[in-house]
Amino acid sequence: MTVRSEAEALRPTDAFAALYAQVQQFYAHQMQLLDAGEAERWAATFTEDARFDVPTLPKPVHGRPGLVTAAQRSADALAEAGERHRHFIGMLDLTERPDGVLDVRAYTIVYASRIGGGCRVHRVCVCTDVLVRSGDELHVRTRTVTRDDFP
Amino acid sequence: MTVRSEAEALRPTDAFAALYAQVQQFYAHQMQLLDAGEAERWAATFTEDARFDVPTLPKPVHGRPGLVTAAQRSADALAEAGERHRHFIGMLDLTERPDGVLDVRAYTIVYASRIGGGCRVHRVCVCTDVLVRSGDELHVRTRTVTRDDFP
Amino acid sequence: MTVRSEAEALRPTDAFAALYAQVQQFYAHQMQLLDAGEAERWAATFTEDARFDVPTLPKPVHGRPGLVTAAQRSADALAEAGERHRHFIGMLDLTERPDGVLDVRAYTIVYASRIGGGCRVHRVCVCTDVLVRSGDELHVRTRTVTRDDFP
Repeated sequence: MTVRSEAEALRPTDAFAALYAQVQQFYAHQMQLLDAGEAERWAATFTEDARFDVPTLPKPVHGRPGLVTAAQRSADALAEAGERHRHFIGMLDLTERPDGVLDVRAYTIVYASRIGGGCRVHRVCVCTDVLVRSGDELHVRTRTVTRDDFP
Repeated sequence: MTVRSEAEALRPTDAFAALYAQVQQFYAHQMQLLDAGEAERWAATFTEDARFDVPTLPKPVHGRPGLVTAAQRSADALAEAGERHRHFIGMLDLTERPDGVLDVRAYTIVYASRIGGGCRVHRVCVCTDVLVRSGDELHVRTRTVTRDDFP
Repeated sequence: MTVRSEAEALRPTDAFAALYAQVQQFYAHQMQLLDAGEAERWAATFTEDARFDVPTLPKPVHGRPGLVTAAQRSADALAEAGERHRHFIGMLDLTERPDGVLDVRAYTIVYASRIGGGCRVHRVCVCTDVLVRSGDELHVRTRTVTRDDFP
């Protein structure tokens, strides 16, 4: 959860730019799938055996079937409540391990809007991911999210 | 308005990085022009015949003169109300068509501050753009914005 | 403080992409250090003689020792208040001078969460930085921040 070292954090190269753009695009697409209620497609952006540990779930989820269930439940609950959520991730602090695995520590703001009502900041979170590559594609192997309003 | 396919969404190349950085820079500059009340310069970031369809206007605007008028009216209304708005766009889900036209689906959060007062989330929106290139420059050909608090 | 010219703002090249990614990564890391209360490490992302002019300080700070003090005081005040802040910077409008110095005009949203309570938008700011390079590393030489709720 801690901020990593500065030595790791600074690499002004074309290779880093290609990686950083890919990771930004990956998150934009992934979060839009979640917010659109595309539970299966969202779960497919994780590895088969991914670990997903977020404050809104009583215990960590392991594997895609559990991710589909969690995303579908959230989408159903929002539809019933007449709300829309948007997960806005940014401030990506990205480092690459020697074996190509990626560590990302990022901020995620969740906005909530009531249909026919107003909008608000719902959650302020820190998201710590481990991303792995399979060919050209990225997948989340582990995701750990903390909420700023929790001790 | 729907989230596009995963196959389109993932390209870890220098070319994609160059494009992604250019598009991010384009939006940063464009939105800062809007928020600064630079109506003419903002309108010039659209094509001559651009279509601009946003919930705050009763019907879509076509062409730069209408864009200038819309932006100027917003700036005047904010000045009169003693408020400042900031359009914070991010989560850019970007794909390139075979002919070089770009599709972008992004989130836009509008923050409002009252001068001498507080600040708040004013709007949570989804922005769907078609961008075209003229030499090295990008222009918006169509922009369609939806508000999360609208049905 | 004004938005710079469009001619400066558009460069779709690998070099610009490498720079833009580096600057995004720099800010992500720098702001995470600040929010983590890592005062010394945060101050080290500025030049030795940096000028730091923000609305929360009665007068501009010059040099790293003053930056450490300012960051430490903020961290202590937040801990005492039982709050967490997150500085979310984005919308980076970046230009490079002929001598390699970088000008950045960006939006910074500060989110505040009360531990055991809720979260909110705390500040909406415009951040104008001058960044300089020392080898591969970036440092802030001057930072000027304005608050939207201030005249």
